[in-house]
Amino acid sequence: MLFMVQLLNIRYPIIQAPMLGVTSPEMVAAVSNEGGLGSLPVGGLSAEKTRELIHKTKSLTSKPFAVNLFAHKIPATNIPQTESMKAFLKKLCDDNQVPYQPPAISDLKFFSYTDQIHVLIEENIPIVSFTFGILNDESIKSLKNNGTILMGTATCLKEAKIQDEKGIDIIVAQGIEAGGHRGTFLEDEPLPMIGLMSLVPQIVGHIKKPVVAAGAINNSRTIKAAFLLGAQGVQVGTAFITSHESLAIPAYKKAVQEATDADTILTKAFSGRWLRGIRNKFVTAVEQSGLEIPDYPIQGGLIASIRMAAQKQNNKEFSGLLAGQSSFTCEEKSSAEIFRKLLDGAEFM
Amino acid sequence: MLFMVQLLNIRYPIIQAPMLGVTSPEMVAAVSNEGGLGSLPVGGLSAEKTRELIHKTKSLTSKPFAVNLFAHKIPATNIPQTESMKAFLKKLCDDNQVPYQPPAISDLKFFSYTDQIHVLIEENIPIVSFTFGILNDESIKSLKNNGTILMGTATCLKEAKIQDEKGIDIIVAQGIEAGGHRGTFLEDEPLPMIGLMSLVPQIVGHIKKPVVAAGAINNSRTIKAAFLLGAQGVQVGTAFITSHESLAIPAYKKAVQEATDADTILTKAFSGRWLRGIRNKFVTAVEQSGLEIPDYPIQGGLIASIRMAAQKQNNKEFSGLLAGQSSFTCEEKSSAEIFRKLLDGAEFM
Repeated sequence: MLFMVQLLNIRYPIIQAPMLGVTSPEMVAAVSNEGGLGSLPVGGLSAEKTRELIHKTKSLTSKPFAVNLFAHKIPATNIPQTESMKAFLKKLCDDNQVPYQPPAISDLKFFSYTDQIHVLIEENIPIVSFTFGILNDESIKSLKNNGTILMGTATCLKEAKIQDEKGIDIIVAQGIEAGGHRGTFLEDEPLPMIGLMSLVPQIVGHIKKPVVAAGAINNSRTIKAAFLLGAQGVQVGTAFITSHESLAIPAYKKAVQEATDADTILTKAFSGRWLRGIRNKFVTAVEQSGLEIPDYPIQGGLIASIRMAAQKQNNKEFSGLLAGQSSFTCEEKSSAEIFRKLLDGAEFM
Repeated sequence: MLFMVQLLNIRYPIIQAPMLGVTSPEMVAAVSNEGGLGSLPVGGLSAEKTRELIHKTKSLTSKPFAVNLFAHKIPATNIPQTESMKAFLKKLCDDNQVPYQPPAISDLKFFSYTDQIHVLIEENIPIVSFTFGILNDESIKSLKNNGTILMGTATCLKEAKIQDEKGIDIIVAQGIEAGGHRGTFLEDEPLPMIGLMSLVPQIVGHIKKPVVAAGAINNSRTIKAAFLLGAQGVQVGTAFITSHESLAIPAYKKAVQEATDADTILTKAFSGRWLRGIRNKFVTAVEQSGLEIPDYPIQGGLIASIRMAAQKQNNKEFSGLLAGQSSFTCEEKSSAEIFRKLLDGAEFM
């Protein structure tokens, strides 16, 4: 088995987590330039937008970076459910002075990752990571034929075994501590909620592929702990939310720094998929509405313009405050400084 | 700040977790005799039974051991709710050939920890640990006046701060990975579900008391990882379920060894309080019944005789299969062997 740093051709086994809406090409490039692996999130974007972001990132670094896809299926829209949610959201926004014009259902457009694969191949992206499922066989084959290293996300051993059987090269073990969307993809089973301390040794013990620990990693001690558990690399997201290169609004950056462990929750309110974020007025209102939440990405499509309006208002109560359980060490610094701080005392490499 | 091993007068900073119904005096003594800290669970027992178990343990070891209390309040019985649950349980047991005669509500007797304090003082117990809350001020004062070291359980930073303010000497940080009952005691707040990797550094960073990491600890690598996070000790429960000195039935021991990460769940079905255990027929049936589950310890009182019947039948489907997320390394060995195996490669001490 090749070690992860060799496989990825990077100096330090530290991956910046792809965070759609937070990660900029500048963040990705800064981390890759420091010798880590930046990850550019393009989940759900059009092929054109994907190419544009890749070009931008390439203009800022000559080092390898990963591109991250959402490997989900697009469900049919349940019209009555969606209309009920729209009406609720309209009233909620009106009551809270957040400008919102609900989209017509016919205007909701969703892109599939299958439309992005050819761009990744044409752009010769060396590493493709994905979450929310597993790429279909055709996509895996096309990318592998092009020499792409594939990284999949698993939130329990069963998911890791499925990734392994499909020939995925590296498994990202996402502990319950992690911020943002859960990568869970087994349907009809309860959401796995496995702590990193349990998840990593279990996957490492059963699968002969490099494992990356994700969740709660925020300094060299947590990195060393993850290595003791058998991980060959770590993925760090929350620590970069407060970076200068982050797209997060000031109120979001502040909330992340002020949150303690129990302030984040798992909710479907923001996108229709489980994600970890800091509880705010929007989440509480949607959860207390008693309404069924439309499946991902429909709910996300309904609230896209709420997110934009909240961003303009610097309004944390209507923004998605995605964050992990260990945000308490976040600092407003450059991504390069944050990356170098993770290495402090990291004689493990 | 005194180091934990000095404070507890033990050689190795490894605590065997108190597991009511699993931990025997023989298990406690074996761990203390090896230089760790055995913990005798007496939560909810009468003063007489408490004294009897302490005498038994003292006859087997001259080393320090802890005694563990349940620091909860006893709620009023909601009679219609309790009668509905009884009727449901009776039918469920009848349908599954488990002998069950539901107790009359007037026959349910619950003991408070306040009736046990004088026994602990008379028996000069050096270390008292507790969970489900915090001892009342009078109990804390009496025990402290007797020189007792107090260990409280916290599942989030806020609970740890409360323990600290009350003068508790050592904080057990119980990660979401841990088996058995959650020690959570903040009412009217969502159940904290913090991974150990996030919980330990957060408590260590805010509280100037020794912190013990509980959950997912099953070998020297996880112990070292916990120490890197700032813990001064670890508490290990699940690894001892399969010990020769364990009271667990063979079917329970087998289930624990076969379970993987996602096989355990959090449920109130067994006792009225959240606990982590392996899903079985009983848990699924109670959860799917749609009935309100009577508060702890009432639900536990209702099913006490089901547990006994299931034990006689070696029936895992009607037993409480309490276990953590990392049970996959459990082995059927003596408690002393299991303890020594935890030390393998543990040059940290």
